[in-house]
Amino acid sequence: MESPQLKSCPIHNTFDLIGRKFTVLILRDMMLYGKTRFNELLDSVEEINSKTLSLRLREMERDELVKRHVYPEMPLRVEYELTEKAGHLRPILEQMGEFSTRYCAADVFRDKKPRGFKQALDIER
Amino acid sequence: MESPQLKSCPIHNTFDLIGRKFTVLILRDMMLYGKTRFNELLDSVEEINSKTLSLRLREMERDELVKRHVYPEMPLRVEYELTEKAGHLRPILEQMGEFSTRYCAADVFRDKKPRGFKQALDIER
Repeated sequence: MESPQLKSCPIHNTFDLIGRKFTVLILRDMMLYGKTRFNELLDSVEEINSKTLSLRLREMERDELVKRHVYPEMPLRVEYELTEKAGHLRPILEQMGEFSTRYCAADVFRDKKPRGFKQALDIER
Repeated sequence: MESPQLKSCPIHNTFDLIGRKFTVLILRDMMLYGKTRFNELLDSVEEINSKTLSLRLREMERDELVKRHVYPEMPLRVEYELTEKAGHLRPILEQMGEFSTRYCAADVFRDKKPRGFKQALDIER
């Protein structure tokens, strides 16, 4: 998509922000937890290692998706929080969830029955 | 997300399908063009090379996102088409477009003015 008005493709632009491995999963967990510590993400994001997590968080800070809070305590406490901008990514993650709960039910549910994403989250509570 | 009912995280599952580099852009162009030839994609997907395009198309065939049609002509004609399953990914791409046209307007529009994704597509016509 190139044109007088568009400088770059909006889908490509979003992909540049969230398309690296694990970024979507980090966003998912930070949306769930709110303010989060490094080690919580290290535990919750499937198969990520600390080097990659650290790199992704720095990229997300640079892209204004994550704010880093440092509390001057001993030992130093560091927490990560999504920005307002990152909050606007939520509909993308919801649609990603929706796709799998509706059209890949056999891959994600033990009973293999398709359902909506929000319905699937309710089961979990 | 692990639980009695969920076998795997729906967001993760979708990411496994469309999270590799270029897959979203291939989907974008195939949604736009309908049946497509390899060389059309090679031209339209920004910065992809033929080795990677060929790999991605094979992955997408394996994941039932793409059907490959071979026409017994000379020279052999091959066309690629999205499956019904892949069609259900459209809301994800629309939300990806929506995010950039609304919240990264300075990155995607010359006039830097935020607008809806569908409105942005209308400008282009």
